[in-house]
Amino acid sequence: MKQFTLSLAFFLCFSLTFANDGYKLWLQYYPFENAEHEASCLPYFLKISVVGNSQTISVIKEEIEIAAEGFFAKKHKPEFQQNPDARLWIGTIESVPANLQAAWKSELSQITEEGYWIKSQAGRLYIIGKTDKGLLYGTFGFLKAVQTRTPLDGFEILENPKIQLRLLNHWDNLNRTVERGYAGFSIWNWHRLPKHIDQQYIDYARANASIGINGVSVTNVNANALVLTPEYLEKAKALADAFRPYGIKVYLTARFNAPMILDNLPTADPLHPAVQQWWKNKAKEIYGYIPDFGGFLVKADSEGQPGPHNYGRTQAEGANMLAEAVKPFGGIVMWRAFVYNEKTPTDRIRQAYDEFKPLDGKFRENVIVQVKNGPLDFQPREPFHPLFGAMPKTPLMMEFQITKEYLGQDTHWVNLASMWREILDADTYAEGKGSTVSKVLQGKVHPYSLTGIAGVANIGTDRNWTGHPTAQADWYAFGKLAWNPDADVDRIATDWIKMTFMQDQDFINTTKGIMMKSYPILVEYMTPLGLHHIMARSHHWGPGPWVTGGGREDWTATYYHRATKDSIGFDRTAGGSNALAQYAPEWEKAWGNPSTISLDYLLWFHRVPWDFELSTGNTLWNEMALRYQRGVEGARWMEGQWIQLEGKIDPERYQHIASFLRIQVEEAVWWRDSCLLYFQQFSGKPLPQSVEKPLHDLNYYLNFKRNFVPGI
Amino acid sequence: MKQFTLSLAFFLCFSLTFANDGYKLWLQYYPFENAEHEASCLPYFLKISVVGNSQTISVIKEEIEIAAEGFFAKKHKPEFQQNPDARLWIGTIESVPANLQAAWKSELSQITEEGYWIKSQAGRLYIIGKTDKGLLYGTFGFLKAVQTRTPLDGFEILENPKIQLRLLNHWDNLNRTVERGYAGFSIWNWHRLPKHIDQQYIDYARANASIGINGVSVTNVNANALVLTPEYLEKAKALADAFRPYGIKVYLTARFNAPMILDNLPTADPLHPAVQQWWKNKAKEIYGYIPDFGGFLVKADSEGQPGPHNYGRTQAEGANMLAEAVKPFGGIVMWRAFVYNEKTPTDRIRQAYDEFKPLDGKFRENVIVQVKNGPLDFQPREPFHPLFGAMPKTPLMMEFQITKEYLGQDTHWVNLASMWREILDADTYAEGKGSTVSKVLQGKVHPYSLTGIAGVANIGTDRNWTGHPTAQADWYAFGKLAWNPDADVDRIATDWIKMTFMQDQDFINTTKGIMMKSYPILVEYMTPLGLHHIMARSHHWGPGPWVTGGGREDWTATYYHRATKDSIGFDRTAGGSNALAQYAPEWEKAWGNPSTISLDYLLWFHRVPWDFELSTGNTLWNEMALRYQRGVEGARWMEGQWIQLEGKIDPERYQHIASFLRIQVEEAVWWRDSCLLYFQQFSGKPLPQSVEKPLHDLNYYLNFKRNFVPGI
Repeated sequence: MKQFTLSLAFFLCFSLTFANDGYKLWLQYYPFENAEHEASCLPYFLKISVVGNSQTISVIKEEIEIAAEGFFAKKHKPEFQQNPDARLWIGTIESVPANLQAAWKSELSQITEEGYWIKSQAGRLYIIGKTDKGLLYGTFGFLKAVQTRTPLDGFEILENPKIQLRLLNHWDNLNRTVERGYAGFSIWNWHRLPKHIDQQYIDYARANASIGINGVSVTNVNANALVLTPEYLEKAKALADAFRPYGIKVYLTARFNAPMILDNLPTADPLHPAVQQWWKNKAKEIYGYIPDFGGFLVKADSEGQPGPHNYGRTQAEGANMLAEAVKPFGGIVMWRAFVYNEKTPTDRIRQAYDEFKPLDGKFRENVIVQVKNGPLDFQPREPFHPLFGAMPKTPLMMEFQITKEYLGQDTHWVNLASMWREILDADTYAEGKGSTVSKVLQGKVHPYSLTGIAGVANIGTDRNWTGHPTAQADWYAFGKLAWNPDADVDRIATDWIKMTFMQDQDFINTTKGIMMKSYPILVEYMTPLGLHHIMARSHHWGPGPWVTGGGREDWTATYYHRATKDSIGFDRTAGGSNALAQYAPEWEKAWGNPSTISLDYLLWFHRVPWDFELSTGNTLWNEMALRYQRGVEGARWMEGQWIQLEGKIDPERYQHIASFLRIQVEEAVWWRDSCLLYFQQFSGKPLPQSVEKPLHDLNYYLNFKRNFVPGI
Repeated sequence: MKQFTLSLAFFLCFSLTFANDGYKLWLQYYPFENAEHEASCLPYFLKISVVGNSQTISVIKEEIEIAAEGFFAKKHKPEFQQNPDARLWIGTIESVPANLQAAWKSELSQITEEGYWIKSQAGRLYIIGKTDKGLLYGTFGFLKAVQTRTPLDGFEILENPKIQLRLLNHWDNLNRTVERGYAGFSIWNWHRLPKHIDQQYIDYARANASIGINGVSVTNVNANALVLTPEYLEKAKALADAFRPYGIKVYLTARFNAPMILDNLPTADPLHPAVQQWWKNKAKEIYGYIPDFGGFLVKADSEGQPGPHNYGRTQAEGANMLAEAVKPFGGIVMWRAFVYNEKTPTDRIRQAYDEFKPLDGKFRENVIVQVKNGPLDFQPREPFHPLFGAMPKTPLMMEFQITKEYLGQDTHWVNLASMWREILDADTYAEGKGSTVSKVLQGKVHPYSLTGIAGVANIGTDRNWTGHPTAQADWYAFGKLAWNPDADVDRIATDWIKMTFMQDQDFINTTKGIMMKSYPILVEYMTPLGLHHIMARSHHWGPGPWVTGGGREDWTATYYHRATKDSIGFDRTAGGSNALAQYAPEWEKAWGNPSTISLDYLLWFHRVPWDFELSTGNTLWNEMALRYQRGVEGARWMEGQWIQLEGKIDPERYQHIASFLRIQVEEAVWWRDSCLLYFQQFSGKPLPQSVEKPLHDLNYYLNFKRNFVPGI
């Protein structure tokens, strides 16, 4: 790698000012560019009627004040009063004046619990919701329109969330390390809670509310039972109190054997009356602290976590016991489907389906099963999880990973919304064509009483929250897709860029261009053609196709790619593990033939000889090499695009992204060179001409080791 | 403890705006309050001549730009040019115009290597130094004058540092935990180095330069040898490159057995030629990365660290080996005197003196011995370390702890400068009366070729750097006292308040009032009358006078207070450990008699019966109880004072401090109640009337346990 030299110019760039560290996320509320447009927006910020009186109503007023301070550079301060001249009116349906109620009967009837309607009428803008929470979302909808410089005169929008549970999952440990966290450490300072409520908790709630997130699970799914003790419940209560005005509920992760750990019960068997009683008492205790406690998120029988299997019970029996405990208080249980075991003698990716599919209909009504987007584990590209569409009687919710465990972690720019769009648009064919994952999640394929989308948070103590400045876009897009899984990701990106940086069209186009191409580029330099889990051991940072041996075969790379002198890939057709049969017949057909399957999934489902000719006309080996090369060229293109934007935005964020792109390019080369050298041992074939020669020999990569890689 | 309720008012307070998170420290550069004064300062910021061309000169210009942006609310931008109209002129001595050189001959000759002179002459302000580094300090001196609203017309000041080595010691581990760190985690993101230089590193350097700190040891003294490998040297080089323009050198901690760990040498014996050669090679390698590398900081033979004792060698032999390795490159070795061992059959606090005193004169000239302020370990109050004044032929440097391991950690407000002033003013009598610790450090008592003061940093990932907003004052004051150990701490506090918050006289007076009384208040509610090391085990947070047993007697509280039914205290007179004899005869006399010793040190040096009558007229027991009570009342008074300031400053910092003061008051009560209940078991006497009844019984406190206390 090239020597890093600090030029004077570099220093000038970095040091100019305390500048913009990105802490304000997409709520920058920066001043208008255009005086005319500013003048047209200003009246809506001067006199404002907000009907009602609650903590959420106060938050609405504060947020408008914060926004106005930014938009108008502190020159104007909103006045809140029941003012007949008010140009902005905010209130729930029942407070709408009678004459308008009548006129708007049809529209008002369409607003759901958390939804809102913004309507321009006679020079006045009305933000109407069914609840104060709807008004809060409506206020953020209004502010977003201003942030994106949408004309307000005549503005109208009706927004109802299509998903009920829109959650962040923090994998934060009580010692403040974050499992798979790459933006520093946990923002929850448990030691100072409950007495000190940090401003960051409030700003966290503001950011989440602005994108419609209404729940957070604050602790790691690899759970510590201590969080269920009074010491920590008092602290969780303080967080819940801080988040409540923002419409956000707190959830906790429940360690399945907590009754044994905390109170020395001899068992955690979910059918044992003492265990059931313990959880009922515990639920009651928790609701004593947090009356609107959301419920439990549970990882059981997976990767060392205790669970019902330990007692010969099913996942449904485990989940139902917890569900009964929280049911009297209105709580729910989110039970993760990420259950697999190296002792189960079948393909790891089959196991969740094999285990859960037979349990369909056996879960209590306040249980929702949380399923990762793909059947393995957040790989750069996986086919959608076959459980989607396969559980008509059991509500399923999506688990996306916003933190990028397998996608470059803190320093690679990849627009996750592009990947999520692919998954959400995938057709399960469960009830015929058009039964997309998105529709399954919305309860439109099967009538689910609970719907949900969770995202594993990418938030930490880094000054900009997410480490990579552009990882803020993933948090933002997650919220937007949880609200509406059919939302247009191109539009989401445009809005995010405008709200976060600036309105300049060149800047928007170039940045969005990078974002929209970033996902396929990353897949190409990391895991082209359906390769998967070839990352380094344990920390998963960087390439590790050579990872083999150790305690668990399903935690090695060789288990997944199975390269030999002849072929590579995992045969998951009927001749192999037949995981393919977990999908609809349409997919069995489309993916069953190595000559016609999308090349994106080729080695996921098939073992393919190195000299097999693909639809591109290339042999498998050549195609693989060309894709790795193309990925590197893509990363370089991204860097080249970004560098053109120097001077457009503040130097701090510009330089932060530029330095990370430098790392991304170098790591893309590392991926390409090491993977191709490794696989070349098997293929025994030369690299195509257009593929650059590796910088080092294979031995260099096999021995490359870095200490203290974050996230584990 | 009282239930914490979130009122609406509370939310309004917290949420108003992203407000001021304190990141800018004392470099707030906020606008002028007074238009006339602003007008008088403005000309100095419009046209500026800065002579020279170096990274440091660029930093000077940038800092003036940042300051001007703040002072004048972006209305004026400085122009830098060799302008004959320039009202501000910055340049080294040799660039001063010939006529002025002659006129100012005497003053110019007084400027030392890092010093500066600011001189007003004919309506122009000159900042003159011997080096660019001196100019940088001079620029910060000038900006401080503006920050504190000092009239610039006629302004003149000559400043030369009285100490050469002014260092921060970070006890930061490579995994980013911070030993005894209470402001989050390490700001060094090793994983992203060397490619990504975070803006925070630059702002860290700016802050340090502004108070004259010229060196940082970036890794924990409980050292990991890995930092000496190319993987980390490349990263340390990146930090050194980033800090260099700010006049800051990087130092590393050296693990004494690194040759064994990194290269499998059979020994780390400092007299073994292979070991010596290994360190010589290593030094050469390091200087290849960092040409101005400062040198090594070493903790040896202490608390499990390897050292020369392992090979039957002296501390001097160990230090000299490293000194010879770095000598060709101009490096130094800071060798810590914090050497003690539970197997040495004497009072722990005697051991450093016993070990080092006989080695006086045996250290190489590029070794400086780093001595903690007191002979134990950063207790709330200790007498000064007896090594000061006892090593005429060996340069000694001070080690203060800015992080508050034993002084309430993150949530107590205590102005450490008050404690440091006590230590610096203490008279060693080494060369007769007036041989203060300060003078020893300055090399005025014995002619030291090296002088230094180090502070264990209180910096972490918290948004305000230091956890407690007021702990910024400790960082600031440390720098000021390292520059001039005779500086007035009242003046330091005033300046810090003005630069950090505002000019309002009421605010300044009240805040300074709290600061100036905070130290004696804390000592009274924690460790009155010379009590020491009665903190909880291991994490040292909260009271633990009952700590006993375990592997090491010298890590228990009972070893130090030795309470029995009859008496309490550690006899360190001739009848006891005779540690008292390590001090000058004047102190032997003053401290040798329990009836005349300052009550601050009573139980440090003496065993005293519970009913012994003190100079106050109270028995020991009553006096102890009354002091604990007074400490609690003091903490309440601090809170009451602060609460009066609500609305004066931004709500974020106000509320942060207010919530911490609430914690401080409750913890002061916890200290008083638990310590008095514990000691009452021995004294068997009732509490005086004016002492409040404890909230709980002793058992409660003995069983009070908190998980995941930070800093270990």
